[in-house]
Amino acid sequence: MRVVIDAMGSDNYPVPDVAGAVMAARQLDDTIVLVGNESAIKTELAKHDSGGLALEVVQADQIITMEDKPSQVVREKRGSSMHVGMNLVKSGDADAFVTAGNTGAALAVAMLRSVGLGRIPGIKRPALGVIFPTPERPFLIDYGANADCRPEHLLQFAMMGSLYVERVLGIKEPRVALISNGEEEGKGNILVQETIPLLDTSGLNFVGNIEPKELMRGAADVAVTDGFTGNILMKTAEAVASYMSESIRKYIKSNPFTAVGGLLARPAFNRVKQHLDPDEVGGVPLLGINGVVIIAHGSSSATAIKRAIEQARSVADKAVVEAIAVGIKQEG
Amino acid sequence: MRVVIDAMGSDNYPVPDVAGAVMAARQLDDTIVLVGNESAIKTELAKHDSGGLALEVVQADQIITMEDKPSQVVREKRGSSMHVGMNLVKSGDADAFVTAGNTGAALAVAMLRSVGLGRIPGIKRPALGVIFPTPERPFLIDYGANADCRPEHLLQFAMMGSLYVERVLGIKEPRVALISNGEEEGKGNILVQETIPLLDTSGLNFVGNIEPKELMRGAADVAVTDGFTGNILMKTAEAVASYMSESIRKYIKSNPFTAVGGLLARPAFNRVKQHLDPDEVGGVPLLGINGVVIIAHGSSSATAIKRAIEQARSVADKAVVEAIAVGIKQEG
Repeated sequence: MRVVIDAMGSDNYPVPDVAGAVMAARQLDDTIVLVGNESAIKTELAKHDSGGLALEVVQADQIITMEDKPSQVVREKRGSSMHVGMNLVKSGDADAFVTAGNTGAALAVAMLRSVGLGRIPGIKRPALGVIFPTPERPFLIDYGANADCRPEHLLQFAMMGSLYVERVLGIKEPRVALISNGEEEGKGNILVQETIPLLDTSGLNFVGNIEPKELMRGAADVAVTDGFTGNILMKTAEAVASYMSESIRKYIKSNPFTAVGGLLARPAFNRVKQHLDPDEVGGVPLLGINGVVIIAHGSSSATAIKRAIEQARSVADKAVVEAIAVGIKQEG
Repeated sequence: MRVVIDAMGSDNYPVPDVAGAVMAARQLDDTIVLVGNESAIKTELAKHDSGGLALEVVQADQIITMEDKPSQVVREKRGSSMHVGMNLVKSGDADAFVTAGNTGAALAVAMLRSVGLGRIPGIKRPALGVIFPTPERPFLIDYGANADCRPEHLLQFAMMGSLYVERVLGIKEPRVALISNGEEEGKGNILVQETIPLLDTSGLNFVGNIEPKELMRGAADVAVTDGFTGNILMKTAEAVASYMSESIRKYIKSNPFTAVGGLLARPAFNRVKQHLDPDEVGGVPLLGINGVVIIAHGSSSATAIKRAIEQARSVADKAVVEAIAVGIKQEG
């Protein structure tokens, strides 16, 4: 296997990107291809003990920043590390691509066949899947690639999510649910209500509508929603989790007795924090693209990058793209 | 002031409903009117020391349950405590109505002029507002009355929310924001993008788009969204908060050292929990209805009912309904 990592992706590029690549090369039997400014990458690599590791460097002349407008850079920065990296996958020189860069730009480059990978034939809208970080690890799709969706899009998200979860997480006949504002019949917006009959007759293991509480408790393996709702849901969860951690820390520190208690209880806090830590669940797969693309958080640590590389390797190994291509043909 | 409380509303009716009414009558200079099964109410009242308090009982022959379908009961159970209670407001015999009952049914009865209160002339869609329980107390509207919305609905929600926050919470020129999946221009779904120009020219203090994180930090006083998104957002926040509390409690108890720490740190936990406790922020105002309607949570405690009654009194006192009627006329 050959996994490409965008060395110019993360907020602190190329530091965690290169460090994560080194960690991955040390642990895996795969070749890690670092794409970006060659001299910057080599300077960074020199800080690590990378002798004997299967690491390659490929030059890319341009860098897409977090401030870049996706619609502009998709055609204007064809020499970017994203473009070069994805084209290594397209040409068969690599098996998967990982970036911690500008998500919108990664989506745009991935989607456009003329500059990047293009969609799997028959897929109307690629979508981002994300593991909800509770112990049950439900998979939410779409996490934000498509702010406005039609029922047929949600049907495809369900199919893609189901195949991902089955192949990568090893869950047989994954339970698929729709995120809704209530489980009862008649609840949901028009999009939810019109998607239900499509899922009912899809051959997927559709278990009905679920609310955020049931999502967290693992009432479904795949939770389907439009990218606007999915994004708001995940961002609310992150915001509340970090708000609560901060508030508890603040109040614990404000008084000597609670401060001692907080020190003693720290292992318990850390365990809960670890559960909810996005670093623990790797990157976000972009499904529906004709090649493996994993998008990691811009603030990724080296460990998070390493996990995203492992994940990319697994998605390639389990032939998720090929399975989606077959699935969509059968459906259509 | 005369505030009506639906004595048959909460999950454990009439226990917390009556107890909350007694607490309110003891604290306020107002008359509290209990509507429902008269003998059940009187039996419950007898358990309290209610002598000398301004409490009245009005008989209602029917009860709307949590399982009742709103579309059915709105016309079929015209003798319900919700119908009777709201009609006391409609006829001018009372100033506000509070219920902890079936939210969908309360909405339906409130909205239909032939059986309940009806809308304020010019208001297209009444909406539920809710205080987000962080210390900054931002007001989110719509919390779930309208799963599908158009831009002109969101504009009215913004106007109603702004008037509520100004009058009831005393915030001058409230900052109004739209909930979105990103603050940058071009982000948002079609609904958000089409609502922006309406808010820009509305005369309201529109401060742009905010994400859930900014909502929690109080970046706006009024956060506007469709009822599907608003409901998912609030339910996600509740689910994460209760999940984290439970998990921390579980892990703290699992080990003697962390258990001791947890005991010492308890005051800090309680303070955070109190912040996020829906009981602390009262009920949910239904805005756009031609009369004051406050909907409390089905699991409300007596304290929560008392707070909802206080809130209803305040909304009536501050003439929010009248202000909305004037506001909508000016808008044209």
